[in-house]
Amino acid sequence: MAEYEVIFQPSDISVRVPAGATVAEAGAAAGLTLLMPCGGRGRCGKCAVRVRSGGLCEVQPSERQIFGEREIAEGWRLACQARVTGEAEIEVPAASSVTAHRVQVEGIGREVLAEPNIRKLPLRLPPPSASDARDDLRRLLDALGGTVSAPACSRLLQDLPGLLRSTGYQVTAVVAGDSLMALEPHDTSDQCYGVAVDIGTTTVVAYLCHLPTGQVVGVASGLNPQARYGDDVISRLQYAISEDGGLERVASAIRESIDDLIGGAADEAGVPRERIYELTVVGNTCMTHLFLGVSPIGLASLPFSPAFREAQTTSAESLGIRINPAGLVYVVPNIGGFVGADTVGVILASELDEADGLRVAVDIGTNGEIVVARQGQLHSCSTAAGPAFEGARIGQGMRAASGAIDRVQVGEEVDYHVIGEAPATGLCGSGLVDAIAELARLGIVDESGRMRGREEVASLPEKVRERLVENDSGREFVIAPARPPRGKAVAVTARDVRELQLAKGAILAGIALLLDELDVEASEIEALLLAGAFGNYIRWESAVSIGLIPSLPQERIISIGNAAGVGARLVLCSTSLRRRAEEIARRVHHVELSQREGFYDRFAGAMAIRAMM
Amino acid sequence: MAEYEVIFQPSDISVRVPAGATVAEAGAAAGLTLLMPCGGRGRCGKCAVRVRSGGLCEVQPSERQIFGEREIAEGWRLACQARVTGEAEIEVPAASSVTAHRVQVEGIGREVLAEPNIRKLPLRLPPPSASDARDDLRRLLDALGGTVSAPACSRLLQDLPGLLRSTGYQVTAVVAGDSLMALEPHDTSDQCYGVAVDIGTTTVVAYLCHLPTGQVVGVASGLNPQARYGDDVISRLQYAISEDGGLERVASAIRESIDDLIGGAADEAGVPRERIYELTVVGNTCMTHLFLGVSPIGLASLPFSPAFREAQTTSAESLGIRINPAGLVYVVPNIGGFVGADTVGVILASELDEADGLRVAVDIGTNGEIVVARQGQLHSCSTAAGPAFEGARIGQGMRAASGAIDRVQVGEEVDYHVIGEAPATGLCGSGLVDAIAELARLGIVDESGRMRGREEVASLPEKVRERLVENDSGREFVIAPARPPRGKAVAVTARDVRELQLAKGAILAGIALLLDELDVEASEIEALLLAGAFGNYIRWESAVSIGLIPSLPQERIISIGNAAGVGARLVLCSTSLRRRAEEIARRVHHVELSQREGFYDRFAGAMAIRAMM
Repeated sequence: MAEYEVIFQPSDISVRVPAGATVAEAGAAAGLTLLMPCGGRGRCGKCAVRVRSGGLCEVQPSERQIFGEREIAEGWRLACQARVTGEAEIEVPAASSVTAHRVQVEGIGREVLAEPNIRKLPLRLPPPSASDARDDLRRLLDALGGTVSAPACSRLLQDLPGLLRSTGYQVTAVVAGDSLMALEPHDTSDQCYGVAVDIGTTTVVAYLCHLPTGQVVGVASGLNPQARYGDDVISRLQYAISEDGGLERVASAIRESIDDLIGGAADEAGVPRERIYELTVVGNTCMTHLFLGVSPIGLASLPFSPAFREAQTTSAESLGIRINPAGLVYVVPNIGGFVGADTVGVILASELDEADGLRVAVDIGTNGEIVVARQGQLHSCSTAAGPAFEGARIGQGMRAASGAIDRVQVGEEVDYHVIGEAPATGLCGSGLVDAIAELARLGIVDESGRMRGREEVASLPEKVRERLVENDSGREFVIAPARPPRGKAVAVTARDVRELQLAKGAILAGIALLLDELDVEASEIEALLLAGAFGNYIRWESAVSIGLIPSLPQERIISIGNAAGVGARLVLCSTSLRRRAEEIARRVHHVELSQREGFYDRFAGAMAIRAMM
Repeated sequence: MAEYEVIFQPSDISVRVPAGATVAEAGAAAGLTLLMPCGGRGRCGKCAVRVRSGGLCEVQPSERQIFGEREIAEGWRLACQARVTGEAEIEVPAASSVTAHRVQVEGIGREVLAEPNIRKLPLRLPPPSASDARDDLRRLLDALGGTVSAPACSRLLQDLPGLLRSTGYQVTAVVAGDSLMALEPHDTSDQCYGVAVDIGTTTVVAYLCHLPTGQVVGVASGLNPQARYGDDVISRLQYAISEDGGLERVASAIRESIDDLIGGAADEAGVPRERIYELTVVGNTCMTHLFLGVSPIGLASLPFSPAFREAQTTSAESLGIRINPAGLVYVVPNIGGFVGADTVGVILASELDEADGLRVAVDIGTNGEIVVARQGQLHSCSTAAGPAFEGARIGQGMRAASGAIDRVQVGEEVDYHVIGEAPATGLCGSGLVDAIAELARLGIVDESGRMRGREEVASLPEKVRERLVENDSGREFVIAPARPPRGKAVAVTARDVRELQLAKGAILAGIALLLDELDVEASEIEALLLAGAFGNYIRWESAVSIGLIPSLPQERIISIGNAAGVGARLVLCSTSLRRRAEEIARRVHHVELSQREGFYDRFAGAMAIRAMM
């Protein structure tokens, strides 16, 4: 039988189908599910498409029932009725398809087909009659094509009889996966939103997305309010398991904060909360436990076994998060130990699971997570890397916000740049790395991390030497002198250098150990992906010169932004990627660094301040 | 290979298995699932059975680890280790088997294998170790054999880490179907209860059952408190759909009443509410709607289409019913129109769906439901039969309780019997039928239902004639004269006769119409099953003589008691019967009497007071 090529727009997907196939069948072959509440009988008009060019059978009587003369002249057809008789190009309007849009993901530059877990289907049901006394629920499920079930949705059932009768049997079904979630009066199919949430130990970000298109329509972020119970993961964990009511407090804190962020993003975008149907959540293992109110006690001691690893779905209402009353929360699976859903998000966003060559991803936040990938093999580990990089534990550390020194250069004198061109109030991660790299280059800090005294660096210019001061808490190097009447000098202290050494030593040792697992050398790394805000700002020369990252050519080092957050958005907008995230979590081999022989030796070695690997 | 017969006790099931099969395998072949939380490795001792006689292999070392000398001498073996080497008879203790008991159902005399939807499995999990860092949830699900899932059970997950660590990893899993429902510390496997509820329009009954054995351990019943919103289904339905907040009030009333009955039955049996895990519910369509808080508006007018027909599962908590916090409510499916889950229960309990010959079941309560079955074909209808039979609308009607006249005989004078040998205060259904049958026999009531005047029955004995009196509201026949100083005469009024005619006319016309559907005659009925309390007390001669039931020989008329309630118990204790109930609901062909041509003619004809059909 003859075969013809059919191209679908705007997604630009082409398929070959036998002559006589319906456009809907061709669409299905191309992965486009067209709406057919009438069961493909040409009655509802929901599968309307427009022919741009080429060969379809002549317009059928059923199509003339639906379209006016003018629409027919414009090329409108019913996908369930029109048959392919030659090469054709067909435009699928958003309203006709369940899965017609591509999601453009910034930072990483990948495109994904929007096929969200939550779908909205506008329906016109036939009212009951003497020859059709089906019950209301069956009437509804039949219109949904018989593949959607209504499990234990008593609230929906309670509203069903009244809703059908007050709307003339015209409603929109909200479907989650293959379960009926909610019903709304009339056609609300375009008002369909979800929120992707990235719970960082320090920062929380919420992305409000329009699900049918995958577009981000609002973003809100804020500090993780759990910080008041401890600035790093371990102290927060200890608080949750040892203080009376501690778990409830840390759980409520993060939930309330997410609820606020959702409110903010929704207000900004003019989206009512009840039109948000799903949340997807990433975070490290401890964060996802605390968010769900699950005790992280198993993570408090070896062998660091979490309470759950697999993806969890629960109701938003049970967590006190105000979206649609039937709304769901999907927590992306964890990998193991402290390596959580956020790392699954990073792998998914960067397609590490499909990389052939050797690739390393490092997500430096309050915790540091490392993934090494080659030919589908994935290994991960975590290090208590990093409050250093987000400001905590550094004398004058701060986040990369207005007033933060983010660039430092020392020549005849000390030059620096302040974010927002404001007076300097502290150092952010990239500024700290720059400063220490410069101090090391000039010999002010030696390889062991010791800060020399002013008398030991006699050959340096006086304007530089005078910045080296000694006070009650030890030596420090002043980057930005105090500006009377108010303000304090911004300096790097000897202790700050030690904090950075601990953090970067752990990361480097982690990378080295995972490379050993695959029996490869650092020089073979074809790409080092730096995730997290930190990666966007750090200067490659500085990072390499102090041995924060392996010595690789600049072009192999790629900042991928908040890849964990991108991962949360991908699973929100694509069920295939959700399944893939679940597969990734199962596939990654997790290495518990502290239980590896030789880790502490490597760690000690990796603390040296010089280019390494 | 040689095959041997193995008989399992106390269920007395025998199977033939090849030599070398384990006792557990033989059990599985016999439909007995033995507990094997250790995975059949001979470690946990949960599958202990006792050999009564015959051939098993010699006692294995693993068995000696579990049993003492004395137990081995008594014949105790592990079903997972002991292999069949000859004919054997084996006793399976309740504690060793998931499904070892038969449920004896009174009234109908059928036996069913207990295989409840809710199962409890005691587990001993290995604690985490360096070589086994599985997460807590995976550890638990693996121990359950990998077929049980944990969907969206966030509460369970929240408690999991603490529970495992505080119990030394010894817990009991409560499993509903193939979903994990709850976890309890240590071994609570014998404390596993459910409640079967029959919501009658007038009376509500709750049966508390021990699920592993199917035994009823407590019963409580009470009046349906919705009566305050209307005594029949239609008036209650109207109240629910037309009064502001009406639906909420009628829903709360029945739920609170069921909650009270559960409390009563549980107290009586010494069972804590949290050890009750499931409720199964039957009732007519309107009752199941109101119980779930679902508007019955579709039942208010033709074509009488309910909001749902299929079985519904929801959480007990969402209905305010206090059993285990994770407990479930399973509402048996409805058939159509007003014919509901209670009729499915009647069919299931009486095995009408498997009857070869022509059988008719009539459930006479406040509503009357009729089922006609032959060779697997099932037809049903409902009639607004009968507040008459439960006392409402009859001048001095009452339920069959103390003080009710339940037998009447008129010879030279008027004889009657009063329940509880108390002073007569009213007439119950069987008393009313008896009285009217006697009045008809004596010619005091004619075929058309008219009550004659004293002068028209001059030939009757004076002691009888003087009971015929006339007052402001018309004629009446005094059964029990007033006993001064207090008390009122108990009489049958002309109006009562009319009420009975309406009720029995509807039932008889319904039976006739369904027989027509199958093209059979009433004389072919091999059994007429009378369900409901009414059927237990009615006198056959009286019922036949006034044409309340077809004229069949006495031996073909069988009282089957509260068959709807038995049905609720069967689906509580057996998942196969639950599936069968769902199939029955789909199979029954529902006939809407009022829409049948000729129904009103038949109805009018069937109101005549004489033996019929």
